[in-house]
This record gives sequence, C-alpha cells and structure tokens, in this order.
Amino acid sequence: MKPLAIGLDFGTESARALLLDLERGQELAVAVEPYPHGVLTHRLPSGAPLPPLWALHHPADYLQVSRVLLQKMRLEAHQSGGTVVGIGLDATASSPLPTDASGVPLALKEAFRYQPHAYLKLWKHHAAEPYAQAINQAHPGFLQMYGGKTSAEWSLAKAWQVLEEAPEIWEATARWIEVGDWLVWQLSGEEVRSSCQAGYKAHWQPEGYPEAAQLRALRPGLEGWLDKLAWPQPVGQKAGGLSQAWAQRTGLPAGIPVATASIDAHAAVLGVGVQESGVLVAILGTSSCHLALSPSACPVPGIAGIVADGILPGLYGYECGQPASGDMLAWWVRTLAWAAQEPEQAVFERLNLELSQRTPRPSGLLALDWWNGCRTPLMNASLKGVLSGLSLATDPPQIYQALIEATALGTRWVKETLEQAVGPLPRVVVTGGLSKTPAIVQILANVLGCEVEASATPHASARGAALYAAMAAGLPLPPAPAAQGFTPNSGAYLELYPSYRSLAEYFGFVQSKEVKS
Amino acid sequence: MKPLAIGLDFGTESARALLLDLERGQELAVAVEPYPHGVLTHRLPSGAPLPPLWALHHPADYLQVSRVLLQKMRLEAHQSGGTVVGIGLDATASSPLPTDASGVPLALKEAFRYQPHAYLKLWKHHAAEPYAQAINQAHPGFLQMYGGKTSAEWSLAKAWQVLEEAPEIWEATARWIEVGDWLVWQLSGEEVRSSCQAGYKAHWQPEGYPEAAQLRALRPGLEGWLDKLAWPQPVGQKAGGLSQAWAQRTGLPAGIPVATASIDAHAAVLGVGVQESGVLVAILGTSSCHLALSPSACPVPGIAGIVADGILPGLYGYECGQPASGDMLAWWVRTLAWAAQEPEQAVFERLNLELSQRTPRPSGLLALDWWNGCRTPLMNASLKGVLSGLSLATDPPQIYQALIEATALGTRWVKETLEQAVGPLPRVVVTGGLSKTPAIVQILANVLGCEVEASATPHASARGAALYAAMAAGLPLPPAPAAQGFTPNSGAYLELYPSYRSLAEYFGFVQSKEVKS
Repeated sequence: MKPLAIGLDFGTESARALLLDLERGQELAVAVEPYPHGVLTHRLPSGAPLPPLWALHHPADYLQVSRVLLQKMRLEAHQSGGTVVGIGLDATASSPLPTDASGVPLALKEAFRYQPHAYLKLWKHHAAEPYAQAINQAHPGFLQMYGGKTSAEWSLAKAWQVLEEAPEIWEATARWIEVGDWLVWQLSGEEVRSSCQAGYKAHWQPEGYPEAAQLRALRPGLEGWLDKLAWPQPVGQKAGGLSQAWAQRTGLPAGIPVATASIDAHAAVLGVGVQESGVLVAILGTSSCHLALSPSACPVPGIAGIVADGILPGLYGYECGQPASGDMLAWWVRTLAWAAQEPEQAVFERLNLELSQRTPRPSGLLALDWWNGCRTPLMNASLKGVLSGLSLATDPPQIYQALIEATALGTRWVKETLEQAVGPLPRVVVTGGLSKTPAIVQILANVLGCEVEASATPHASARGAALYAAMAAGLPLPPAPAAQGFTPNSGAYLELYPSYRSLAEYFGFVQSKEVKS
Repeated sequence: MKPLAIGLDFGTESARALLLDLERGQELAVAVEPYPHGVLTHRLPSGAPLPPLWALHHPADYLQVSRVLLQKMRLEAHQSGGTVVGIGLDATASSPLPTDASGVPLALKEAFRYQPHAYLKLWKHHAAEPYAQAINQAHPGFLQMYGGKTSAEWSLAKAWQVLEEAPEIWEATARWIEVGDWLVWQLSGEEVRSSCQAGYKAHWQPEGYPEAAQLRALRPGLEGWLDKLAWPQPVGQKAGGLSQAWAQRTGLPAGIPVATASIDAHAAVLGVGVQESGVLVAILGTSSCHLALSPSACPVPGIAGIVADGILPGLYGYECGQPASGDMLAWWVRTLAWAAQEPEQAVFERLNLELSQRTPRPSGLLALDWWNGCRTPLMNASLKGVLSGLSLATDPPQIYQALIEATALGTRWVKETLEQAVGPLPRVVVTGGLSKTPAIVQILANVLGCEVEASATPHASARGAALYAAMAAGLPLPPAPAAQGFTPNSGAYLELYPSYRSLAEYFGFVQSKEVKS
C-alpha cells in the first residue's frame, strides 16, 4: 500500500486538507471546510458585543472542521488504495487561546462563554496594539532577532492584553497556546509546542523565551506568561500518535504520527520543495511573506524574525514581509469598481488581460508599496503609499502595473536585505495568489533581473504540512512540485530600482518625521 | 434707449455672444455657435492629411459664426428695447493665421487650400514644440518678462514652423495675425493689433517686439516675422467702426465702435468686475490661469507674462497658470468610469455629492498637481503628478478631494509667486468651470486661508469683451456681477502648504534630473 500523508492548513476563513502521495509527490485530494462561526468581529456567539479591532475564532470550530476533513481524507485514501502514515498541520499565527491545564479552551467553559478574552485571538485581532507599542518603546533585549520590534499580532502583546483587561481570565489560563499547537495536543494527546510558532510569534530563541525579569519590567505579572507556555520542539518531528478518540472519530489508524505544528506561510517553503539555503521563497498573497534558510543567525535591521529550526530542523529560518501586495491590487480594483456596475472580479480580469497584452516595458510610473505601511526593512506601519509619474494620459492598467512593479521592487529590497544576512539568494521561488498570474511573475523577474520559478502547487502550505508528516514518519520526501520559470524579458525594468530606493528614502524619512511631529 | 454692448468670445470648439445692459450690468442674452469645421487635427477640409500634434481652425468659420451671433444679438437687442453701442471680442491665443496684405486668409485662396500651413494654427497646435525649444535654448533677451521661456503655443514658434516647413507660405504671408485681431480687422476694416495678444503671445513690450538681430540669430529669415506684425494698441480702445458690409450683414448700426481684441482668459478679469491692483483673478477651468494688475513691471521667475496695457490700459497685466486643473479632475472621473457603465457626468456628480457631504477637513493625502507639467513657477512641462499618503482605506472621493487640494495648493504657490512681484493680493476672485462647485471653492478658501469670491457670471470672458466695447464707446462701466464669498471653515488645511512645497521641491528636483539624464 502506497504511503500517504495528510496536511491540514488552518486559514482565516476556512481550513483545507490535502492528501499527498509520498512516493510520487502527487496531490491526490483536497477539501476545504469553512469555520462554522467564521471570524468573530462584532459579537460572540453568546451575543456579547466586541470592541473595534477585535477578531476572534471559536475553538470548537477547529475540532469540527478537523473531524470533517480527516474523515474525507480517510475516504479519499481508501479510494486511492493507499494508507495514511501521518498527519501534519499548519495554522495562522499568532492565534493563541487560553486553556485549562488539560487543554480545554476557556471559551468552551460555561463560566467564560460570555467573556471575549476567553476566545481564540486570531492573528488579525489588532486590539493589542497599545501593548505592542509599550513593548517596543521599552526596547527589550529579546527583540534582537525580530528587527527590534514585536507586533500587535504576536503572542506577547495579546497575552498582555488579557492580563490587563481580563485578570480573571488570565488567572484561569493554565496554558496560553497557539491554535496549531493546541490542535496537535487535541489530536495526539501530547502538548508539544513547535519551534516555528514559538520562535516567530513568542520570541523564543535557542537560549529561551524572554526572561521573567524583562517581562516583569514591562508589567508586573506579565512574567506569568512563561508558566503558561512550554519549551518547543523542532518542526517535522513526531509530537505523538493519533489518539484512540480521534482514530474512532475519523476512521484513521490510531498511533500514526502527528507532526509538530507549523505556521501557514512557513510551511509553504517545504511545500514548494525548498529545503536548502540560497533560495528566496516569496508567498505573494494579500500580503507577502519572504522566507529563506541559512546555517547561521545574523540579525540585520528590518528582518521580521530569525528562528532556529523555525522552517526546517537544523537551519535558521528567516522571515520578512510586506503588509500589502495583493491587497494593494485589490484596492485598485475596488477603486475602479466604485463607479461600476461590474463585479470586482470582472475588473480584475480586464486589468490582467490588458497587462498581458501590453509590450513588456515599465509602466512609466513609480509607486511605493506602502498601502499598509512598510514591514521589511523599515518596520514602520504608519508609512503610506505613493504614486508618482502621473499624467493626463495615465490609464487604469498603467496604475495597476505600477502597483505590481512596486510589489516587485519591494520584494527586491527585501531580497537585498535578506542577502545581507544570509548571503546570495540566486534562486527565487514564488507561490500564493499573485503567482498564478503570469504577467505579475514576469514583472517580478524583470525587476529582480533573474529567473523566478512559480510553483505549480496551489496548496503550498497544506503540501508543506503533509511533508512535515512524512518527516515525522521518518519517510523520504517525494519530488517537489513542478515550477514554471520566468526569465527577464525587458532590461528597462532594472532602471526602476535605484529610483524606487531614492523615493523610499525620501518618503521613509519625510513621513516618519510627520508622524512623530 | 438703453445702451447695450455685445461681447463675442471665440473659444476652441465654439463662439459665444453676450448682450450686456451697460446701465444695470445685466446679461440680457447669450448665444453659442459651434465652428462648422470644428478643430482640424487629422485632415484639412480639402482632404489633405495632418501630422500628429497639429490643431487648426478654418478661418471662414469665424466669419460665419460671427455673422450668426451678431444677427442673434441684434434681434435680442431689439426685443429688449435697447440699442447696441459697441462690439468687443476676445479669442483664444496664440491662434495666428497668415493673410495677404488686404487681410484675406491664405487658407481661403485656391492656391493654398491644400496647404496645412495656410490655415489658422489653434493655440493647442503643439507641432511647433522643436522651435519653441530652440528659442528657449538660445536664452534670447526678449524672454525677460516671460519667465525666460516661450511656448510652442505662442506666435513666434508657430511662425518659425511655417518659415521652416513651408517657405512658400511664409513668402506669401503679408500679415501674420492673431485671429482676434484679424476679426477686428474684418469687422471694422482696420488692422489694429491689441497689446494683450501682442504682449502675451508675441513677446511685444513697450520697447518693441524682439529685435531683428535677435531673430536672425535664431534663424536667418525669421526677422521677416516683424514685417508681418504691427504695433499694437491698448485693450479697450476703439479700433474702428463697424463696416458697412458687416452692418448690412447683421442689421447692426454701421460705425458703432469695435474694440481692440483681447484674449479669452484676460478678458475675464474685467468680466468679473476687477479693474484694480491687489486682486488675484483665478480662472479655474480645464487648466487654470491666474491674473493680477499692477502699476509696475517686476519680473519674477515663473511668471508667464507681464504686459503693459495687457488687461487694462495704464496697468501691467500679470499672467500665471497651471496646465491641468479641471483636466486633472476629469482624469480621475475618466479613470473611475473606465470600468463603469455609468457616464462620466454621473461619476462627477457623485464625487461632488460625496465631497459636499464630508466633514470639512483635509483628505489626508497630498498630491502634486503636475498631471500636465508645472507652468508657474517651475516652467517645466515634463514634470508629472504625484499622489502620496495612500492606504487600503483610501476611497475615490478622497483622491478626488486630494486633486482639488492640489489645485488649491498650486494656486497658493502661484499667488505667493505673484505677490513677490506685485505685492499683497488680499482679494481673490474665481471664475471658470470649477468655480461653480461650492465644495471646490471652499477648499480653495481653506488652503489660501482667506476669503474667495466666486463670480456669479457664467460668461466672464464674453462679459469682459462687452465691457471693452463700453470702454471703446466711452461709456462708464456698469456694476460688477454679484459674487458668492467663501470664508475658511477649517484651519487644518493650512498645514498642507509647507508639506506641498517640500514635496514640490523634492519632485521638481528629482524629476528634472531624470528628464535630463
């Protein structure tokens, strides 16, 4: 019987399961399940209202979609004549939830179901911003590998918010755990944290989490966070075997390895077939995430996180990103659709068609891709987007192209920043929504001045999760998915980058000054 | 019988006539006639093709629309129980045509009707650009009162183009004359040039036209231009009486004064009731034109023209401008309508409605109004527009507002430039298409930090032309049209100007460098 692995990928609106043939690397089946309660932004299921900027999940949703997805994969495995030898999973992060000592979410307890702080805080819960700012202003030493900054989206700021705003929940929280780790615990019965989630979202480094004294200095009591965490294990390890309860619930064999959890973006590196240093993996979606592997840790300003065993065991994983990429294109589509009767999708398709029909040369405009601030390398969320070079002859596809160029130019800046830390990155592999539009990848190749490989898998994260399962099962990894290579077809793009850097220097400075004044 | 004056206003697509009650200042009637041949951009009526950037008029069209409009005004005058005591006219400029010694346009002669250069070159005929550049590169002394630059739209560059490209036409040209002056000649039988057209478009100054030696230095033969011109008379003078032929043709009394011609923009100063120094008159249309009067001539960089008797006899008229104002708003409307089924007018109205409903505060964006280059003060047609401060939350009305703010900020820069030359301009009067939208004038008042008066006449140029007729007839001028005053209602706008100037300094420098390199 051919060995199969299941990868579970827990996103923001839905979860996805992938069944991977571990001999040939084929993706045999995919299923998607939305979370029954969706993202809670206005009120709890119990009716309790939520303040602005909140974004929660209901923990029970994860158990329900996991059961449905695993059942489906078991049937698919049966039909394909294979046998499931392991389960891996990735999830959004930092998406932590408070549980009791046995892992029962406080949100599921009658005493707490009306309390917003008892629920899972989704990565995009932004109400912890004041706590992130307070941490950053204190410049604690534990931010060295994080470009000197934490984020409101990360674990510590969210924990501090609970401590400050709901001390009774904080008191009742025995374990403060990422949903990915919590799911591993549910499936295997073992509370095993992962180096990926701990490292990128809870400031864990090989020498430890932030020290109690550092946390106490921020806010007395915050050091209690450490008691609610656990020392992490590298990704790709067996956390435990599938429990009897889950085996009965899903029809899968009890005891098959459940791998330590990963974060969705980080799982995509393995998913597109990258296991070595010297490669930039760019996930170009609504935002973009840039990842690379290296045998050594070298902090460089503007890198969002450097984590040992964070992406693959034995290597340091580097993470950078831009908070708006596809989002910026969607903004332009939304802008154009403002006056239109046409649905946004039609506008988007028309822009892509126009783009693909034009001569391969720069738009003639120059944009700064800061529609949602600049993460790497300036780490300044208050920076804003710029469009320059406009004239009466500028048309909507030109602006669309300029925004794509800006994303590509931003990616080149990220690449050069990363290269300062890890050395040359001669290979570039892209995945994510934008990588499916050839004209967009072509512009990226032109701006980077090198070949760009667009991964063929539409499920890089889920595939990565399945591969972690294969590693946990001790099996060799199957061949990487095919990729389409794009080589530069216009030298004119290379002139853009120095202009982009000049513009970024000017606005990075001017806008920062205005924000401060 | 109450005295009435007719003002004729010759625009780009059509001509307009206004009948003005000279006692009470009432506008009794208005008529509009399109030019039968329209703007010739692709071929002559004879079928001969035109190269790119050409824009011609057929001289016969002016005679035809003049006859129709004057007949209509004669009927209206009769019905109102008044008597027409004079005719004034303004036209676009520089819109010169070649004629024989008796004023017959070469275009109307059989020998030349297939020759593009025999026709009237409309102000927006841009094919003389290389000649304008050659003049500017030579830095001749006669450009001192013109910010050191001539324009492809002006008389000398257009004349040089004829000399160079059609020497036989140049040879046959006895008179090279602005269409406004030519119409005065046709109506009155007197070839009387106006200080307004000669001063602003043919570099005439009280000490003369450019010298023959200066022109010869540019191109041997170009000094022949001087023999085809004539010494101008101030605006508001009687050029001659209406000829018997035109009296018969229109039913108007022969011998009534025909005033020296004016340019459309410049006639608007008198049209909105301004006859004194200390007032900025801004005509905010597709482009914008800023005019002021002063007893003295003081050249300041970036002022497009300073002309004695150019707007009113006895005063120097100052002209500045921006090549895109309403055009820039129309660009945004066109952009939004790209994907829409809605007509552009509906989009424009929706934007204005949104704007009027929002709190009076700055858009939060900052734009440079250089969608068609910057005329005053940078005199650089190659500069481009900039939009900064963009975010995922930016909506179309915000960008619309930012473009209006940019026009207002540009106007403030023009005002400060003018004030360096003529001293304080405590009064601001606006007219033109944009002045009819209250929300736009309100933003201008907020950005300037002073009251802005929006003139009530929708026909400022034609009204000005009629007032020149009154002056030519020796009659006192009637009361000025009512104006609606807008006072600043938000102090927050005042912070924009320093930021605008910084941005302009950066891009004025950076873009100029890029163009040169």
